[in-house]
Amino acid sequence: MKLLRYGPPGQERPGLLDADGGLRDLSGHLGDLSGAALLPQAMARIAALDPASLPLIEGDPRIGPCVGGVGKYMCIGLNYRDHAEEAGMAIPEHPILFMKASSAICGPNDDVLIPRGADKVDWEVELGVVIGKPAKYVTEAEAMGHVAGYCVCNDVSERDRQLKLSGQWTKGKSCDSFGPLGPWLVSADAVPDPQALRLTADVNGERLQDGTTATMIFTVAQIIAHLSTLFTLHPGDVIATGTPPGVGMGMTPQRFLKPGDVMEVGIEGLGRQRQVARADD
Amino acid sequence: MKLLRYGPPGQERPGLLDADGGLRDLSGHLGDLSGAALLPQAMARIAALDPASLPLIEGDPRIGPCVGGVGKYMCIGLNYRDHAEEAGMAIPEHPILFMKASSAICGPNDDVLIPRGADKVDWEVELGVVIGKPAKYVTEAEAMGHVAGYCVCNDVSERDRQLKLSGQWTKGKSCDSFGPLGPWLVSADAVPDPQALRLTADVNGERLQDGTTATMIFTVAQIIAHLSTLFTLHPGDVIATGTPPGVGMGMTPQRFLKPGDVMEVGIEGLGRQRQVARADD
Repeated sequence: MKLLRYGPPGQERPGLLDADGGLRDLSGHLGDLSGAALLPQAMARIAALDPASLPLIEGDPRIGPCVGGVGKYMCIGLNYRDHAEEAGMAIPEHPILFMKASSAICGPNDDVLIPRGADKVDWEVELGVVIGKPAKYVTEAEAMGHVAGYCVCNDVSERDRQLKLSGQWTKGKSCDSFGPLGPWLVSADAVPDPQALRLTADVNGERLQDGTTATMIFTVAQIIAHLSTLFTLHPGDVIATGTPPGVGMGMTPQRFLKPGDVMEVGIEGLGRQRQVARADD
Repeated sequence: MKLLRYGPPGQERPGLLDADGGLRDLSGHLGDLSGAALLPQAMARIAALDPASLPLIEGDPRIGPCVGGVGKYMCIGLNYRDHAEEAGMAIPEHPILFMKASSAICGPNDDVLIPRGADKVDWEVELGVVIGKPAKYVTEAEAMGHVAGYCVCNDVSERDRQLKLSGQWTKGKSCDSFGPLGPWLVSADAVPDPQALRLTADVNGERLQDGTTATMIFTVAQIIAHLSTLFTLHPGDVIATGTPPGVGMGMTPQRFLKPGDVMEVGIEGLGRQRQVARADD
């Protein structure tokens, strides 16, 4: 099941992608794709609907972030062995956690804004995990039962703000528009093995990231179990699980986004995003 | 003007403290003390009400966090010169930013939970700044016009999770119940100089922190201007502006909370909080 949100920013309505690629409106059945609407019983109610019975959405509306009202947008740093090497950083002993401000979240195809004075904006394709059931002190074996579904994340990053502006990565990760989510929230039952998905990122048509979630250092289940020892994971929380090699910071010479550059990031079975970079005036 | 939220967790209603210390219900005038209700024109409408015309709240209800629907809970690290020295860390060149998960937010007098396996839970009294008007690329001179008001924050911290669990402080700052906010949101007009407020923290009746916001490294205006170069600050966002010396980590020997310990933290004119520590079962 592929769920989505469509419409202008801040006014998105819930929808569903049918088997023919048509957008179907879900707003007769739920207010938003957020919080309690992601609980297992609520997701089961959506799954029981006949897509053909839902209104077909005409035209080509903007696709919004695939989850609304995200409480916590958690990111795991350096979670691919070869990316850690490319970044010149040690393999972490525990999942590295930083937060992306929820105000950074945007639609999968919205423009990405280059902040004033910034010249090191970089791409990071990541598997996003959307929580569907509260999780606190859960074991690795229990963890996957708390996942509503998966989505594509581009963990857009400005490297000077991340690494040089007096510590803590969140500064370089939280700029407005640095959190494209979607296009779809793909329900967990439709992703049999989240540790066997191909991830790619292209910039201006050139393939720069091409990895697989099989090379994660910490699996989705391990990450959820670890985070749940720190705090409660709530429905609608999002975890971006790290990026494979191929980011601009790791290239020789380094390469970053200029206004007009086009990023395309995608994950096998989860869809693709396309963002144009532009200056934040 | 002292605004507040009262009632059970997740069902708080907006209220106001009248001149006699009585709680008055505001729910006939606004849905919640959050987001757009904090915009200058909305705050002016509340200020124009006659408190005596509002229903007096009977009994002794729980006081909730003084702001609802917090989008970003931002914390500034090492912002008091003498606290940075006590922590053995260099004076930062720019405000250090980390995020506290919004799921950590609780009422000012709710119990503070010691996470399983944690033995380094510490107190940090801080001046909280509540944003009242969107701020992006604002100057220091403009910054204070974006403040709705101030509140007491206890930036509760678990030091092993903060410093030893593979980087990024957010892990030790975001545990459930680590974000008591309130009791009141004191409107900006009632705080003539936020850089001249006494802050105190007592544990089991012993005064351990006793500082003044006059010794901040970065002022409230400087912090807002800096953060607004990174992202948009939205109404209802909260900034905890750092803590003066006297935290348990800085003592010799170090001292941390045990179940049953009582924290009382307060700021001149902004009220006091009282939390009992207990094990998170």
